[in-house]
Amino acid sequence: MTAEKIVTASVLIIGNEILSGRTQDANLAYIAAGLNGVGVSLREARVIPDVADVIVATVNEVRAKFDYVFTTGGIGPTHDDITSECVAKAFGVPWTLHPEAHKLFLAQYKPGELNEARLRMAHTPEGATLIRNPVSRAPGFRIGNVFVMAGIPSVMQGMFDSIKHDLKGGRPMLSRTVTCHLPEGVIAKGLGEIQARYPDLDIGSYPFYRRGEFGTSLVLRGRDAERLAAGTEEVVALVRELGGDPIRE
Amino acid sequence: MTAEKIVTASVLIIGNEILSGRTQDANLAYIAAGLNGVGVSLREARVIPDVADVIVATVNEVRAKFDYVFTTGGIGPTHDDITSECVAKAFGVPWTLHPEAHKLFLAQYKPGELNEARLRMAHTPEGATLIRNPVSRAPGFRIGNVFVMAGIPSVMQGMFDSIKHDLKGGRPMLSRTVTCHLPEGVIAKGLGEIQARYPDLDIGSYPFYRRGEFGTSLVLRGRDAERLAAGTEEVVALVRELGGDPIRE
Repeated sequence: MTAEKIVTASVLIIGNEILSGRTQDANLAYIAAGLNGVGVSLREARVIPDVADVIVATVNEVRAKFDYVFTTGGIGPTHDDITSECVAKAFGVPWTLHPEAHKLFLAQYKPGELNEARLRMAHTPEGATLIRNPVSRAPGFRIGNVFVMAGIPSVMQGMFDSIKHDLKGGRPMLSRTVTCHLPEGVIAKGLGEIQARYPDLDIGSYPFYRRGEFGTSLVLRGRDAERLAAGTEEVVALVRELGGDPIRE
Repeated sequence: MTAEKIVTASVLIIGNEILSGRTQDANLAYIAAGLNGVGVSLREARVIPDVADVIVATVNEVRAKFDYVFTTGGIGPTHDDITSECVAKAFGVPWTLHPEAHKLFLAQYKPGELNEARLRMAHTPEGATLIRNPVSRAPGFRIGNVFVMAGIPSVMQGMFDSIKHDLKGGRPMLSRTVTCHLPEGVIAKGLGEIQARYPDLDIGSYPFYRRGEFGTSLVLRGRDAERLAAGTEEVVALVRELGGDPIRE
């Protein structure tokens, strides 16, 4: 194997409503799976409140640390929508009316409807490029390695789908899952030995509890299809040897 | 109003399966709502991978920054379950067999079943106190201000419920929601004015899209019931004035 560049990413979920428990985040899993598919490795996600200092500091921390950053939430017209201004502040650039977004809004809103609050949504950090919103009106934007998207899942998904093929990822991560009804404690030793022989694979063990029964999903992930297939065969053999009934998913 | 101490918390969701998009986290919203109910303010959440250095550094960062830290995931018997050892390392204490957990395991497992992998789950950072697991076998634990819990939602919920009343929170955060079918862009100006008059309340505006219709939920949160009621009346009046039909939820 030759060393290959791993392209990394961070997701920032911005919004008090997630931290209060009012809203269950529905965006992370979608972005995570999408990044996986284009060979970008999601290294962390953070949920942070609508607090300017926290947003600015966190954006600056993660954009230096990872190849890509994706934010969700806080780009609407109300007083608590401060993501866009905060990203401008993080990049040290003015927050200005984006000519293209302005044109879009002039075409979409009737005269008199384009009030001050809505016009805020046509502002971006200077130098940003727009991300198309195929569902509603306000666009997202990209500046540097930071992609700023909406919080409403249907809108976020439309935005993410429109940019994900522009990301420069590495080889996509492939995965295989073997499920069985053996408890983790019985598989652990043998599985650890397989992991030690396949340091290039990431082998995870995920217990589950369904219909009154505990079971375990064994997930193998890697970029090399042959190594992945070989590791999976070993896991299947281990489960059989321990008296389990391996199911490939 | 007198200044009151706000008790803060951070949640660490530990697990590659969340970052790969394989699993949708189901724990954050539960913990968030529970903390809210006992007057603890959740200030951030992070999803981090099963990587020792990252876990150790993150635990040390957040335990210094917040009053309480809650972790989920990574306390099973397999090679990828490294949370417990990492927390010991973060606190700079040995990772040792916990006598009480050992006793529990000796009573629960038949002779021969308590193998090395399972015995790992009876280890904790030295000085930790156990968190009861009402669903399966392996306990969680608390050390200092850090609470270490399982990742399986049913188990995590049982653990969290068993410790949440021991937390020393402030006055609980109360909330009121007013829903309407006005777009955010119409409400924004008046809502921002109400927020400016009620700096002690946290007023959020959350657009939604249901059955082909956009609408907005206006959520007011605060610790003082009278101020909250007064602010809510102003929001209801604003929606009416703008021709909307406010629904108190």
